[in-house]
Parts: sequence; C-alpha cells; structure tokens
Amino acid sequence: MSTSTSPLAQPFPALPAIPGVSLRVARARYKNWDRCDLTFVTLDEGTSVAGVLTSSKCPSPEVEWCRKALVLGKARALVVNAGNSNAFTGNRGRAAVEAIAARTAQHLGCDPSDVFVSSTGVIGVPLPIEKAEAGLDAAYTAEPCAWEDAAATIMTTDTFAKGAVTTAVVDGRTVTLAGIIKGSGMIAPDMATMLGFIFTDAAVDPVFLQRALSEANGATFSCITVDGDTSTSDTVLAFATGKAGNAPLTSDEDAGADAFRAALADLCRQLALLVVRDGEGAQKLIEITVEGAESDRSAHRIAMSIANSPLVKTAIAGEDANWGRVVMAVGKAGEPAERDKLAIRFGTTQVARDGLAVDGYDEAPVAAHLKGQEIEIGVDLGLGEGRATVWTCDLTHGYISINADYRS
Amino acid sequence: MSTSTSPLAQPFPALPAIPGVSLRVARARYKNWDRCDLTFVTLDEGTSVAGVLTSSKCPSPEVEWCRKALVLGKARALVVNAGNSNAFTGNRGRAAVEAIAARTAQHLGCDPSDVFVSSTGVIGVPLPIEKAEAGLDAAYTAEPCAWEDAAATIMTTDTFAKGAVTTAVVDGRTVTLAGIIKGSGMIAPDMATMLGFIFTDAAVDPVFLQRALSEANGATFSCITVDGDTSTSDTVLAFATGKAGNAPLTSDEDAGADAFRAALADLCRQLALLVVRDGEGAQKLIEITVEGAESDRSAHRIAMSIANSPLVKTAIAGEDANWGRVVMAVGKAGEPAERDKLAIRFGTTQVARDGLAVDGYDEAPVAAHLKGQEIEIGVDLGLGEGRATVWTCDLTHGYISINADYRS
Repeated sequence: MSTSTSPLAQPFPALPAIPGVSLRVARARYKNWDRCDLTFVTLDEGTSVAGVLTSSKCPSPEVEWCRKALVLGKARALVVNAGNSNAFTGNRGRAAVEAIAARTAQHLGCDPSDVFVSSTGVIGVPLPIEKAEAGLDAAYTAEPCAWEDAAATIMTTDTFAKGAVTTAVVDGRTVTLAGIIKGSGMIAPDMATMLGFIFTDAAVDPVFLQRALSEANGATFSCITVDGDTSTSDTVLAFATGKAGNAPLTSDEDAGADAFRAALADLCRQLALLVVRDGEGAQKLIEITVEGAESDRSAHRIAMSIANSPLVKTAIAGEDANWGRVVMAVGKAGEPAERDKLAIRFGTTQVARDGLAVDGYDEAPVAAHLKGQEIEIGVDLGLGEGRATVWTCDLTHGYISINADYRS
Repeated sequence: MSTSTSPLAQPFPALPAIPGVSLRVARARYKNWDRCDLTFVTLDEGTSVAGVLTSSKCPSPEVEWCRKALVLGKARALVVNAGNSNAFTGNRGRAAVEAIAARTAQHLGCDPSDVFVSSTGVIGVPLPIEKAEAGLDAAYTAEPCAWEDAAATIMTTDTFAKGAVTTAVVDGRTVTLAGIIKGSGMIAPDMATMLGFIFTDAAVDPVFLQRALSEANGATFSCITVDGDTSTSDTVLAFATGKAGNAPLTSDEDAGADAFRAALADLCRQLALLVVRDGEGAQKLIEITVEGAESDRSAHRIAMSIANSPLVKTAIAGEDANWGRVVMAVGKAGEPAERDKLAIRFGTTQVARDGLAVDGYDEAPVAAHLKGQEIEIGVDLGLGEGRATVWTCDLTHGYISINADYRS
C-alpha cells in the first residue's frame, strides 16, 4: 500500500535534544513488514504530562488508559505502537495495554500509571502481547535514536515524517518545545490516526500544562479536517521534563507563562498543518477563515461545514472557482447567517458581497489563485465579531484510491 | 457534461393521469442547450398544497416565495425551471420569481400567490426574466405532455427520469398519488437540487396535507444523503386536486386518513430512493438501520453519521468489509453509545457483537453481500428502543470526476 509522498510534504526540521527525554525504536512486527513499529520514549523523573484525547464514544483501550493516567499528571514513559490500533478488541485489548504498562514499569522501576500508551493501525485485532513485550525489551536495550526515526516509526499511511520545534523564554531561561505527529487526517481507525507527542524541557505544573494544551488544541488540532471522520484513537500528549530549570509554571501570572502558552500554540499549529499536508490524496492545503459571525463558536462551525463539504473540496481539487458551493456550505451549517449580508473571497479577490456576485466579477485572479498549492477562502457573515480559521485539504481521486481501491 | 446512466437506474413507471392536473413543457433555453427546461403544471381550482423546503440559511428566492405561498394552502400552478437555480442573486432573483408568478397568474386568471415556482441549476446568475416569460407563454399554448416528459424536463445532472405512483382507498374511493423528482443527492446548487412534486386527486385539507407530508418527509427525504451537502433550493411540494370526490380529509379520524398518510409516505419513500439511486457516481445503494438507540432521534443521527462518512462510503465502493469504519462513525456521532454493547451486521451476517469481532468471524458471506448492488448495514447499540433507517450510496471516482474534473 505504498503511496508517493504528498506534494505538500515538508522536509523534517532539525530538532534539538530535549533534556530528560530519550527516544528509542524497535521492530515489534505488528504487521508483516520489516520496519520499526514500536517507539519507546523514556522521561526523567519529575516530568509532568497533559493530553487531549478523541471525543469518540467508542475509544480504544489506549485512550481510556491515558485518560485515567492523565489525572495523576506525571509520566516516566511513552510507548507507541504502529500497525495495530487495538481498538474494538474488548478485554483482550485492555489486557494488552496493561501488559505494556506493566513491562515498562518493571524496566524503569516506576508505576504502571506513569506509562502512556498509544496505538494506531488496523482495528478489531487485539494487539499481540508477546510481540509488544519482545519489542519493548528490544527497545529498552537499543541505542537512543533521532527525532526523525521516532517520527517515522509512529507512521502508518503517512507519506512523510512530521516534526516541529519552537522555543520560549520562561523565567529568564530559553525553553524548547519539540513535537512529532502522525496522521493523514481525522480519519479511520484502520488507516491512520492522529497521534501527536510534544516534549519540552520547561518546568510546568501538570494542571497548567493541561490548560495550555487544551487551549492550544482548540485553535489547532480541533481546526483541521481531512474527511470529517474522527478516529477512535486520536491522542495528543505533552510532556514537560523540567530540565530547563525555570521556576515551574503554575499560573497565567507566572513570568513566561504567556510566552510558553504562545509557543505551545505555535507548535501545535505547525504539527496540525503537517497532518493536513499529508491528508489522504491531498494536492492542496486550504485555509478557511470565517469572520463576522455571531460568535467564535458559530464561526468555527460554519468554517468546518465548508471544510467538510465534499463539493467545496472537489471544486478546489478541480481548481474551479465555484463559490456557490461555499454559499451552500454556509447555508447548511445551521448557524445564524443572512444571505443578503454574506461576502466571500478566494485569496484576496472578493467574489460575492451583499448576497450576490460582485459587480463586474472577473474570475481570472481567482482562477490563478486556485492553481496554487495553498488556497484561502474567506467568508464574512456581516453579523458580529465571531471569527475562526480552519484548515483542510482537497478531495481527490487519490482519496478514493487510498480508501476504496486498495484493500487493507 | 454527459454522464452515463446510473447502474442503479430504474425504468420510468406507468403513471396515470391525475384529474385536475395538466402537464406542459417548453424550451426556455436557460442554458445553451436544445431541450425542454421549463415545466408548467396547471391545477384546477380547489387544489390544496403542502410543502417541505430546505433548511438552508441561504435559500433561493423560489424557496422563500413557496414558504410564503404555502401559508395560504391553495395552488393553481407550478412552474419549474431547470438550468439556473436563481439562488444568491439578490433583488434581481426575487424580481424573476415575482415576474413568473405574475405572468402565470395573468394566463390563468388567478392570484400570483396561487403559483408555485422552483428552480434548479447554476447559482449566482439571476434567472433571465425574458427567457422565463417566453418559455411560459410557449408552455401555456403547448399540448399537454406525459409524466415522463415532465420528469425529464426538471432534470439537470440526473441520469434518468424519476417517477412513482401509489393508491389508497379514502372514503370508499380509490385515490391516486403520483410524483416526479429530480436530484442526484442533497447536493450543490449549481449541480443538482432535490425537487420533488407530488400530485393526488384526493380531496385533502391543506393543513392535514401539510402534516401528512411533514411526517412522511421525516422518514423519507430527511433520511437520504449522497454527500451530506444540503442545497439552497431543495423543495418538495404536494398538490391535492380533490377530483376523486371523497369527503375532504381534515383529521386523522377521517375515514381513509391512515390509508392516505401511509400511501403518501410510501410514495415519498419511492421517490427518495430514486434520488439515491441517481447519486453522483453511485454504484451501490446502501440501507443503514440503527436500532437499540436511546431514542429514534439519536438512532437517526448515528445512522446519518455512518451514511455521511467518506470512509464508510469508500469502503463499500471498494467492496471492503471494513466494519471498523462503522465503529468509527458510530463513535464520532456524539450520541449515547457504549462500545462494549455494540453489534454490527453486513447483510444478514453478524460481524461484531459486544464490542468486538464475533467468534470465528468468516468474511466470506460479507464479501459476497458487498459484491451486490444493494447493501445493508445494521447497527444495534443495545441501549434502548430507538430506531432509524437511512439510505445513501457509495463514494466513488465517479463522484470526484463529476464534481472536480468537469468544469461547470
């Protein structure tokens, strides 16, 4: 099931080591392949953790495990399995997660609840415990690896390894935030799942870290869509080792709290956009901004209605300046909108205003914009101050081929 | 933009004349084509009318006109324009609808509010009034035509003409209900819109007719989806001429009220399924039944979440028994669901029960079922008595080709 690299791919950036974080990978051979598929990250004592997890009502046992462990706010290890999501596997799936946590805790001399586990891949097949344990043992004794190796090891149908880095000055010290992510969209459990892992050497109280991550998530991971399908396993975890030596961040009033929150949001945005750039079949990255809505929430819903519309997405794929489909998607969102106040632009070109095409509308600059790889759609509802930006990709034959023609 | 006939097409049935209804068609030439594109239906005095209209917040002026006229409950004419939806055209669009109603009222000596108008086709271009008026004049003097001609004249990207008929015994008399419909789904305004028109010789009070139509709509037109995109122009109108001579139906207690409601629901179901059979790119008709939900409404939402999932639809297109995607779609619906109580079947074969694959699951009978043209997916949530059935089609390369590769 090899796919050529996304035309929107970006090279893997230079990521520095994060003190307190060690990366290792191994071959658990969850599928019949010869590649590393188990990632084992150890975290020094004193690491705090926060996370956001899928809202699916049918989550994987890994998600349930993480949800429980997050309450305690501390972490010593992260284990990521690629090739088998372990979702919808009943008691046997739960037992596999418990076995992984127990084996890791035994190696590190920590509590099982200090171990975070994520899995991505085929659904409905319990994760084989022997393979996981053998893989863990191999990883435990392996040499530490580079970020790019870890980013490649968590991939499934992804076409390129994805990572990002940023820094912030907190309490007079420069702290680093680095992250890796996988996913070809908010997509199906047997194909790909969005898993993102963020590491920082900043000292951050877990309650504050959770608040900052949830806030960043609302403006980044929650604002991307490939096909509107939400995985049973979506997970983003943030780990803070505290090795930078700053006074631990505990509230918005602390020196550097704003800088840290901004850096975390920036990192999340970078990682989220990388996922859209690897959307299945994607040829174009689409940024949709809705303003003038009654509220930010309303703006977000309208933007997602546009981003999830198959007709908008196929029009962009066809480089067709079909703004009527944007009107349609605004209209179906069910949010307050007045047709005769609606304005729409593609790129910087206004195409409709006050509920009809602009006088002397010239399609040429719009057609030129649509030939590019990065497309902007702007909608102004003319009702209030609500605003939101979301990102998606186009819907192409590639998406159909990946999801229908190829058998899993 | 010719497309070959849907593999799910059905032959046009023999539809009898409905006393009090005359059909005529003409060439208004809304597009550069040589085909009839204006349908003119005259209705004898005493005809009552009911309708259901798009919930889009950006409706066409035709929809707004019908919404107003429906309040009066009576009708003398229906005019349907194909090739131009007149949506998102501001004052000029409103003026076009008013001109059509005025010209028709002048011909028939009735009130403009007795005239119902629907349009389907490209968005953002005001309907040319001169063409509409010339077309109306031509239709007014034309010979009456057959149902199939009218059904073909309201088509845009439809690949086959769609009609259905049924009867009911009301007050000792057999009444006939006939309908025509167009649409390749709940889809975009410049491609196709669902327009359905139902005619009966039964005598039916407009308030009762509206209640019966709304009820039927909830179980039929509201339960189909091709791509989850809702048109700005979707319209279903029902006209009752009263020529059958039954005592007018005014309440559920009247003789034949139940039979009439059942017949109307049956007709709506037939028409709705024809639309799915002509879904853009459709190769398979998919029936999704959800039971065991907390309420019927919850069951409907979960069923629509499955029906609108691109991953479920591409799996069916690929004849892939990928039940994990059904789990995903249940999980993302946001409705009450418990993973460990969930059961899923394809056709009559149970594939998962109690939150995991059934013991000794054999994919062979499922694979055989998926090779057919009519696919059934059943989900039992095991929570309550809520139940819903919805219909959709698969998502294929044909959909992408129709909506991206071809320019409008």
